[in-house]
Amino acid sequence: MNKQIETLVLKVAKLTRQTHELGIPVMILFEGIPASGKTRLCNELLLTLDGKYSSFIATKSPSEEDLRYQFFQKYWNGLPKKGDINVYFRSWYAHYIDFKENRIKEDFYKDYQTLREQIHQFESMLIADNHEIIKFYIEIDEEKRLEHIREMRQNPLTKWKAQEYEDVIESKIYEANMKAFVDESQDWEVIDYTNREHATLLMYEHMIQRLEAAISRHERKCTERNGHFTEGFSDDAFEMMTDKVKKDAYDQQIDALQSRLTELQFALYERKIPLIIVYEGMDAAGKGGNIKRLRQKLDPTGYEVNAIGAPTEDELNRHYLWRFAKDMPKSGHIELFDRSWYGRVLVERVEGFATVDEWQRAYDEINAFEKMWTDEHAIILKFFLTIDKDEQLKRFNDRVENVDKNWKITDEDWRNRDKWAEYQEASLDMIHKTHTSYAPWHVIATNHKKTARIKVLKHVIRTCEAELFGVMHD
Amino acid sequence: MNKQIETLVLKVAKLTRQTHELGIPVMILFEGIPASGKTRLCNELLLTLDGKYSSFIATKSPSEEDLRYQFFQKYWNGLPKKGDINVYFRSWYAHYIDFKENRIKEDFYKDYQTLREQIHQFESMLIADNHEIIKFYIEIDEEKRLEHIREMRQNPLTKWKAQEYEDVIESKIYEANMKAFVDESQDWEVIDYTNREHATLLMYEHMIQRLEAAISRHERKCTERNGHFTEGFSDDAFEMMTDKVKKDAYDQQIDALQSRLTELQFALYERKIPLIIVYEGMDAAGKGGNIKRLRQKLDPTGYEVNAIGAPTEDELNRHYLWRFAKDMPKSGHIELFDRSWYGRVLVERVEGFATVDEWQRAYDEINAFEKMWTDEHAIILKFFLTIDKDEQLKRFNDRVENVDKNWKITDEDWRNRDKWAEYQEASLDMIHKTHTSYAPWHVIATNHKKTARIKVLKHVIRTCEAELFGVMHD
Repeated sequence: MNKQIETLVLKVAKLTRQTHELGIPVMILFEGIPASGKTRLCNELLLTLDGKYSSFIATKSPSEEDLRYQFFQKYWNGLPKKGDINVYFRSWYAHYIDFKENRIKEDFYKDYQTLREQIHQFESMLIADNHEIIKFYIEIDEEKRLEHIREMRQNPLTKWKAQEYEDVIESKIYEANMKAFVDESQDWEVIDYTNREHATLLMYEHMIQRLEAAISRHERKCTERNGHFTEGFSDDAFEMMTDKVKKDAYDQQIDALQSRLTELQFALYERKIPLIIVYEGMDAAGKGGNIKRLRQKLDPTGYEVNAIGAPTEDELNRHYLWRFAKDMPKSGHIELFDRSWYGRVLVERVEGFATVDEWQRAYDEINAFEKMWTDEHAIILKFFLTIDKDEQLKRFNDRVENVDKNWKITDEDWRNRDKWAEYQEASLDMIHKTHTSYAPWHVIATNHKKTARIKVLKHVIRTCEAELFGVMHD
Repeated sequence: MNKQIETLVLKVAKLTRQTHELGIPVMILFEGIPASGKTRLCNELLLTLDGKYSSFIATKSPSEEDLRYQFFQKYWNGLPKKGDINVYFRSWYAHYIDFKENRIKEDFYKDYQTLREQIHQFESMLIADNHEIIKFYIEIDEEKRLEHIREMRQNPLTKWKAQEYEDVIESKIYEANMKAFVDESQDWEVIDYTNREHATLLMYEHMIQRLEAAISRHERKCTERNGHFTEGFSDDAFEMMTDKVKKDAYDQQIDALQSRLTELQFALYERKIPLIIVYEGMDAAGKGGNIKRLRQKLDPTGYEVNAIGAPTEDELNRHYLWRFAKDMPKSGHIELFDRSWYGRVLVERVEGFATVDEWQRAYDEINAFEKMWTDEHAIILKFFLTIDKDEQLKRFNDRVENVDKNWKITDEDWRNRDKWAEYQEASLDMIHKTHTSYAPWHVIATNHKKTARIKVLKHVIRTCEAELFGVMHD
């Protein structure tokens, strides 16, 4: 190996050991037309990285199954954890061009401007969360490129592979699209691979520059961070509704509503519409029982309940939206979240697990996150279940006394109760800032549980019917 | 709800909280012909389980992508962790029947007896590792079944779903196959759903009986477990080969071999043969450098390196083979394991992380595990790299002195060195007990690193050529 490159390799190896130790997630994108040399360059870099914390991720044309998920689904699933390095061989940019040029999901995206916005949002969220995104665009002299393809074609073992490279029109379109991205942003490092050694050198130099910058930014952030957690609160309370449903009416209604929802589940499936239902609310507000009534007659092959507890080590080591994103439903499926990403602006805010900057930023992030799914015509319904403080006490005591229920009540519940006002404030802020036209909140008083169940079922049915048949009745 | 059932529900809820706390993984299988009532029964059970640690997994006809993986791949990926409960709506049994009746992968499985053996092996491994597998087979009076289908057909929203149920021939075949399984094993709990309430009752009663048995078995194991870790060892050493390759010859050969391997990579891809390469060996034996030479010219879109470190919390909470199984290559891809599942019988044995019973059982388990892939014509090559004790000391000291290498040497390496003899013994046992015709070991002396690299490359090339072209040259 060239002596100069050897020195750079050692430096990159050292810097990546540092980003690993500091817990900085690094994402390295390689774009470039076929046979431009990005394969070689990419492998060269991989050899320098420690296999224990680096991954190679290739973007391919989406399969039929892939298309049942949101555009970014695979990238969310494979997000690097703290200190990991993901090398993307073609990235969401190639994925975007594929969608745009092949008119994939055209009904949702029309001129594909929305997808560009999603790309911007996705990257912004990650960068705000300390992810380092490094983008390479590889070019090559056209003659060199054709020479490489000729070589492959002459070898019987690699001949079929060369054929993949011959779809020239596609390459031209890809190139034109990528050029537009590269021109409009400073982010991209353009590397000419015509001279291989020179290209390798440039790649490593850019890596060093970016990694060093990431490390010093990280160190600066660590010193700034202290003391920036939440404090103080104002008081408030939710309005309590009191119109109770009678016992007889309840039995009749709940059965009819559950049956209707089952029919709608099949209809959503046939129409390939995903349904996302989020439950948040004070402890003992009756989330569990409410969810149980909602799912009682559903077909289990088409829905899933995601009960969110304290994050695991694996979840803490990734962007906070990762644990939810990876479980979002595919087309025609229903996902019920018993607590959700709103934990960021509720418990994490109140308990100081997130910094002020982090939870304040989260409102916009969450709105953008939810829009990614509704952009593809998912239905999102968010329910906030409330009770008053006296009723909560009554229910807590009830749990303590009932031998079949007392596993439900923990010290943490009592501690949360002590912070009633803080939670109220955080909840109100959340509802104001994340109540959008495409993903609205429904605040449901649950001092009378049965009434609350009927209300939620009605909201879900009404919203689904509106989406399926364009009707909205009451 | 029926009072009797209500009591059973509370009991099951309580017992599953216990299995959760004790860390017992529970797998519940539901099989039964379409419209037999297994959907309802399954959902009924799900409502009783805590969503925080229970999952619903439906087995579907495999997609084209699925078929690129081993038969059990999805079940490995979704294995429950300690304390989790997986409910399978149709399981590997339905999957097997699908394979058999539709002649899927017929080239590999011919009369599908091999797959039945795989099922047996898979379940045995899990049961030995404390997993509780509960199997329900749901039957129903044929008239009741047809009535249910008629109802669905009359409703325009669910009509399409009813059509799925009408493929009577398929149901009959499924039934005949399942009956054979049910008849030959005591494992299955057969439930007649003709009377719904009675069926629910039976299901919960069986659940209670099995969960109670699992819990008491678990408690018994815990008391037995103490003191059953490894001790003692005999001495030994590996033979050292000394035929060194000369510098000039090396430069020439390595380049030619790497190029040949790249061609073979494309050929394997085209022929859809997965290649699994396992590296084990003493510290500083040169695994890293050897792997680097092997992958140097490979196309990164077709291979992955899996460097195995200490297990994460998530990995410790699952069957020890899970972390490897989930990363096995799909057809035509190459997976390189830098250390592997053999850790079970090496470090885990020597350090006492596994009990004597666990690591002794592991030889057979590993042989069965590897066979699952070679049954589908994967190539498995296993390399054990050895050095002598003096050479290791030389390399350790070298690392300590070299500023670019000293991150590589840790206290653990020195501790392992102190247990040289124990590791030798464990390695020899491993090689003797897991050297199979379908997944052989190659012991490679690495006192001279370059010679070792040439040897490994030659082994890989020779084995691939034999598989691809039926030739075996030297």
